[in-house]
Amino acid sequence: MRGVVMHAPGDVSVEDLKDPAITAPTDAIIRLSATCVCGSDLWPYRGSDQVTQPTPMGHEYAGIVEEVGDEVRNVSPGQFVVGSFFASDNTCEICQAGYQTSCVHREPVRGAQAQYLRVPLADGTLVATPEVPDADLVPSFLAASDVLGTGWFAAVAAQAGPGKTVAVVGDGAVGLLGVLAARQLGAERVIAMSRHAPRQKLALEFGATDIVTERGDDGVARIKELTGGLGAHSLIEAVGTQESMMQAIRSTRAGGHVGYVGVSHDVALDGRELFYSHVHLHGGPAPVRAYLPELIDLIWRRSIEPGRVFDLEVPLDEAAEAYRAMDERRAIKALLRP
Amino acid sequence: MRGVVMHAPGDVSVEDLKDPAITAPTDAIIRLSATCVCGSDLWPYRGSDQVTQPTPMGHEYAGIVEEVGDEVRNVSPGQFVVGSFFASDNTCEICQAGYQTSCVHREPVRGAQAQYLRVPLADGTLVATPEVPDADLVPSFLAASDVLGTGWFAAVAAQAGPGKTVAVVGDGAVGLLGVLAARQLGAERVIAMSRHAPRQKLALEFGATDIVTERGDDGVARIKELTGGLGAHSLIEAVGTQESMMQAIRSTRAGGHVGYVGVSHDVALDGRELFYSHVHLHGGPAPVRAYLPELIDLIWRRSIEPGRVFDLEVPLDEAAEAYRAMDERRAIKALLRP
Repeated sequence: MRGVVMHAPGDVSVEDLKDPAITAPTDAIIRLSATCVCGSDLWPYRGSDQVTQPTPMGHEYAGIVEEVGDEVRNVSPGQFVVGSFFASDNTCEICQAGYQTSCVHREPVRGAQAQYLRVPLADGTLVATPEVPDADLVPSFLAASDVLGTGWFAAVAAQAGPGKTVAVVGDGAVGLLGVLAARQLGAERVIAMSRHAPRQKLALEFGATDIVTERGDDGVARIKELTGGLGAHSLIEAVGTQESMMQAIRSTRAGGHVGYVGVSHDVALDGRELFYSHVHLHGGPAPVRAYLPELIDLIWRRSIEPGRVFDLEVPLDEAAEAYRAMDERRAIKALLRP
Repeated sequence: MRGVVMHAPGDVSVEDLKDPAITAPTDAIIRLSATCVCGSDLWPYRGSDQVTQPTPMGHEYAGIVEEVGDEVRNVSPGQFVVGSFFASDNTCEICQAGYQTSCVHREPVRGAQAQYLRVPLADGTLVATPEVPDADLVPSFLAASDVLGTGWFAAVAAQAGPGKTVAVVGDGAVGLLGVLAARQLGAERVIAMSRHAPRQKLALEFGATDIVTERGDDGVARIKELTGGLGAHSLIEAVGTQESMMQAIRSTRAGGHVGYVGVSHDVALDGRELFYSHVHLHGGPAPVRAYLPELIDLIWRRSIEPGRVFDLEVPLDEAAEAYRAMDERRAIKALLRP
């Protein structure tokens, strides 16, 4: 099969790889309908994470079940399924508490930028749609696999809800879907922080009520100005840098909630500032699996269209261009057609 | 009047000070029935916080209202009252959300280790007992002013409750009262981390179900061992050092809650570790005022006896010995009789 491999920062190629096979009776093999490049793939692409060996890329996936191991009961060949970037048993105490990405049996899912994918712990990881969906819904189901689920977790962690003012730091796909999630969860006001016209436009279409173009201390001042000097109730942090974390924490009122999902890079939080900020801080790898049934239902009923974050679509063989376009911020998120 | 002044690390004396007077129509003057030395007073005493000028000490107080300003409506002379270490209006949006220590009009209360005390914003800050209490209840009401309220907030922030296993880092008065609070809030199991026999004993009397003597990485390993490898649901952090914060975070299961109330000193939290820990982090200066009505009721009905943390009682004039005893850990907490 064809699949994307990263060899070094800036160096991705599409190569002939061995077809994945069932290796445990709990595995499933998926034929991918669509896959995509994640903002987190840009960390190694830009050299912020090390690339020590040729690495099959991709962890977002939606597609048709091709084959299942002997012990798989919940999904069967021919079904269209969506899964998360961590496989989970969905039965342990941690999963039952809604933290499937910290499942005691979790396994990373890697190599999804390809034609086929092996998914471990299929029963706990994959959720099937009611029927094989219309083609136009596929990008939205693919989005559910990571960026929508991650934005949703951030909004939940930030306790977005009725009567709340939510601000969003980060205008990538996760931040934009954090806007959508906050509105779906009932937030009264959603402030998107972005200085890029196409992203501002999508934020407004996803339900943002305000756009703030300032960042850093100026961004904090602007959020305070818009919230009677107090700060927002809820902050979604979807970047993962020191500046974005501090912008989020400082924009939050005492007693408010910061939901952070940007993978932290060189972030060190000053204990004293955090102490006196009085904020709630929660985040980490989004337990997408917890939200998949609800998100799939919303997409199936066409209540939400998260697939609109894909503003570039290329054949899998042109993955290198997809990486370049995202790296250069020419695209918000690139979909790959295997 | 007589009052405690800190001149330099290790140097406190009791001196003749000017009697406090009403300076704003919202002030009250209290004649202190009892006051005490706080664990946080030991930071400057030990040189960890700077002492730049002679500083009247003390922020924990309970006593009889002596005089009130023209605009004070909720308390009147002759009543026995308890207040918090930050004065608050108790009406602003932040107070209404339960974060009185971040009130938009907050003022620190200082100089409580004395015979008389001026309390700003008396209506929002002070809570009266039903009647002047019996003398044996005074230490417990004094404890409500800070250490009980702080332990209570930590337990709330850690979401201690039915079915939960709560671990407590720190065996000072706040940690011990965190044990009491966790049990009052319904926690099933409360693990006190302490290697000091008298403190272990009090923890057990306050409802601890387990004692762990290990600390640091060994302490974390022991908590994991006691919780099926997962970590506790809830952690109360009542110290404020890098080691204690990491001990708390690492002892908490994914999705669990850390409530931290030790005033952070030279703490820097690694973003990546926090991200992957999946814990909820919340803390800061405890909004004691939010809990005072409930705590006063529990004490008045003799359901709890938080005053037992005072294992040393000296006349105000012997405050220097009280500081020494706490510094040397000869006393858990020292009560001063004005």
